[in-house]
Amino acid sequence: MGLDAAEVSQLFAEVVGAGNVLVGDAVGDDYSHDEALGAAPQVPLAVVRPGSTEEVATLLRLADERRIPVTARGAGTGMSGACIPEPDGIVVSFERMNRIVEIDEQNFVAVVEPGVQLDQLDAALAPLGLVYPVFPGEYSASLGGNVSTNAGGMRAVKYGVTRQHVLGVEAVLPSGEVLTCGGKIVKVSTGYDLTQLIVGSEGTLALVTQATLRLYPRAGHASTLLAPFATVDEVTAAVPRIVGSGVGPLILEYIDMLTMAAATAHVGLDLGIPSSIQESALAYLVVALESTHADRLEQDTEATATLLSSLGALDVYVLPDGAAAQLIDAREKAFWVAKANGADDIIDVVVPRASVPAFMARVAEIANEHSSWIAGCGHAGDGNVHMAVFQPDPSVRSRVLHGLFTAGIDLGGAISGEHGLGRSKKRYFLDLEDPAKIALMRRIKVAFDPHSILNPGTLFD
Amino acid sequence: MGLDAAEVSQLFAEVVGAGNVLVGDAVGDDYSHDEALGAAPQVPLAVVRPGSTEEVATLLRLADERRIPVTARGAGTGMSGACIPEPDGIVVSFERMNRIVEIDEQNFVAVVEPGVQLDQLDAALAPLGLVYPVFPGEYSASLGGNVSTNAGGMRAVKYGVTRQHVLGVEAVLPSGEVLTCGGKIVKVSTGYDLTQLIVGSEGTLALVTQATLRLYPRAGHASTLLAPFATVDEVTAAVPRIVGSGVGPLILEYIDMLTMAAATAHVGLDLGIPSSIQESALAYLVVALESTHADRLEQDTEATATLLSSLGALDVYVLPDGAAAQLIDAREKAFWVAKANGADDIIDVVVPRASVPAFMARVAEIANEHSSWIAGCGHAGDGNVHMAVFQPDPSVRSRVLHGLFTAGIDLGGAISGEHGLGRSKKRYFLDLEDPAKIALMRRIKVAFDPHSILNPGTLFD
Repeated sequence: MGLDAAEVSQLFAEVVGAGNVLVGDAVGDDYSHDEALGAAPQVPLAVVRPGSTEEVATLLRLADERRIPVTARGAGTGMSGACIPEPDGIVVSFERMNRIVEIDEQNFVAVVEPGVQLDQLDAALAPLGLVYPVFPGEYSASLGGNVSTNAGGMRAVKYGVTRQHVLGVEAVLPSGEVLTCGGKIVKVSTGYDLTQLIVGSEGTLALVTQATLRLYPRAGHASTLLAPFATVDEVTAAVPRIVGSGVGPLILEYIDMLTMAAATAHVGLDLGIPSSIQESALAYLVVALESTHADRLEQDTEATATLLSSLGALDVYVLPDGAAAQLIDAREKAFWVAKANGADDIIDVVVPRASVPAFMARVAEIANEHSSWIAGCGHAGDGNVHMAVFQPDPSVRSRVLHGLFTAGIDLGGAISGEHGLGRSKKRYFLDLEDPAKIALMRRIKVAFDPHSILNPGTLFD
Repeated sequence: MGLDAAEVSQLFAEVVGAGNVLVGDAVGDDYSHDEALGAAPQVPLAVVRPGSTEEVATLLRLADERRIPVTARGAGTGMSGACIPEPDGIVVSFERMNRIVEIDEQNFVAVVEPGVQLDQLDAALAPLGLVYPVFPGEYSASLGGNVSTNAGGMRAVKYGVTRQHVLGVEAVLPSGEVLTCGGKIVKVSTGYDLTQLIVGSEGTLALVTQATLRLYPRAGHASTLLAPFATVDEVTAAVPRIVGSGVGPLILEYIDMLTMAAATAHVGLDLGIPSSIQESALAYLVVALESTHADRLEQDTEATATLLSSLGALDVYVLPDGAAAQLIDAREKAFWVAKANGADDIIDVVVPRASVPAFMARVAEIANEHSSWIAGCGHAGDGNVHMAVFQPDPSVRSRVLHGLFTAGIDLGGAISGEHGLGRSKKRYFLDLEDPAKIALMRRIKVAFDPHSILNPGTLFD
């Protein structure tokens, strides 16, 4: 306890080698934060870069014995501050554990180390005609981070989120025990599902050293439709109709007028929408479809275009491949555009799909009440609303966020659909969640991590 | 502690009304067992039939205070003895809590009480063009039981198991605290996923009083192909090829020669397969496809038939609807046929899909070593093998089961893919599973149920 940086460095250098422990100036600013806007960076005592599960087990056991806080880090692209370390703790960075251990084409699974990045995995899978279907929008994100936050993204409306595709994990407890949970099996009813408990636990229960991911055949054909609507309500009312049509959309996004203007301007994209329609359009719906057969895709695309027209779309554009890719890219960069434009925080409240209009109405009221500007886009098919909040005063902003989260929860939703709580949304969670559930979660935390060394600033105080 | 039946009856009559507490002869044999072959029935002190969540909360609090063991029961169709009560405990039977609370067509969810049966839900959904896609084969099963065991069934190869469709639960802890976990939201990253932890926990963590289930548009068209093969290896080798074709099979089952003969004879089904082929066929593959479009179904059916032929099928039969329904029905009744034929136990080991041939080879060796007869069928697409074990000597049978489970685990699988462990498979689990994982699961159990009143004979000793 109370070790200084030199002592910590020496302790862990014996485990991972001196070259893989960073202290002092070598730590660098990057390890003090992720991409969360609402959480203050903190510099750790040291950064430790293990190269194997055995090293992770040994260093965790040492950290547990000495009560040294441990914060796991993948690529640092998180949105909630869950990889901001404690000042008297260490970052365990998985940058060296970046091997795709195996792609098993018979069982349709990939086994990866936590430092593998999404684009790295996708590049390995594409030539095999396979896909890991979770695309949270940031391709440099690590799989370890994705597992930790239960990452989602635009294609979740078709494929579901990370949780649905993690068949197993190898995970290390603070005791140094290495657990193998699940595996290359698609179903299991053999004791409690530790895999599902660890997924989404934001590094507070165990460190994941390997994940077994489910793969799918890669669909060969895709199309993208863009439909401007005069009101946000019409956009969200269209969503259940498209889901119910059985077309199985790959992407079902809404983008509000302001976000669309900013996003397309950011990437210099002209979608060729006449100005008369642009002026009437308060929101856009983006629908992507995919199929193994070109003719089926064409048929589905036509049927969806007809459906959108009947649901009040001002027009329907089937985008050429290039423009479609640019639009999706622009949508994925919405966070960066918001950040560049001075957004003070972002949220990703999830509500029942049909409650999006009610939630949006509350958003407008809250923005108005607090003289704040709130704009956004979202995974409409999932009821997962991404909003950028522009309000420089921290105490007003805190009230705005509290209001937004309360509105979401009152509608049967939750604070975060896919970003996680980390440090930045923790206080709202602790304030708004049922105390009996929080107490139970704390008892579960103790079952894994009795001395609370794993990411102590995240989820709980 | 140490209450007798009269005292227990009086205690709970005050909660649920005297007419809803059964004691003595009124308890009846049914409440002493489920459908597990390998577990001895036990008669409880009393059967308590609550009518509301509030009653469940009150009775659990009372039971916890007095350390009365509580075993939850749905329809009693389980296969692992997880609803066999303790002799000094009570059965909480959910037969009165059998309401479909809501079918929400906008959000594509149903909210059900635990006593709702699968056929009851399906009858309510069919007219709306919706489906809850988990069909574990026994339509009188309750949703509460399905949630408790994480039930699977033939369509899991397309839709996944119960876990993937439970968006939320209302669950009561032994403390009487009522937790609302998840809800009508399809994704969430807000603290630990208690829903996923409770699903599959076999009534040992909490009593589920309501479940929110995901629904899907009902596909209008279906076809069924039957392909006899000369070897089991050819059948299992065909499986990854069909999955990889992108056709997205609804059902992908293998049935061995003996099981096929027994099952079809049981329902009086003549599939019109020439005797020359029947004599050469050691195993059958059943492939069902579904589609929203008749023309696509026809195209996929033809493509799959061609693929099956190229993979060595002795012939490929596209079954008329009536025969297809009978065959699926016969397959679903395989357990009953095995039981009627004197099977002494059944197993549902799951292994990686591609390891089914290796597992089947070990099964044949084990059967031979122990002069036992082992036959079966299985969810080939999921690597989930259902075997009936014919070996009347309990100690020899125990060695056979131990050998089968060891073989499954050695191949990266697990003891149960969908039945659960209950009382009947518990000892193998406690013997074969990693002690560190069992210890962690026990700590999780304590976090929910500190006095171990919930289903104390299941999972753990």
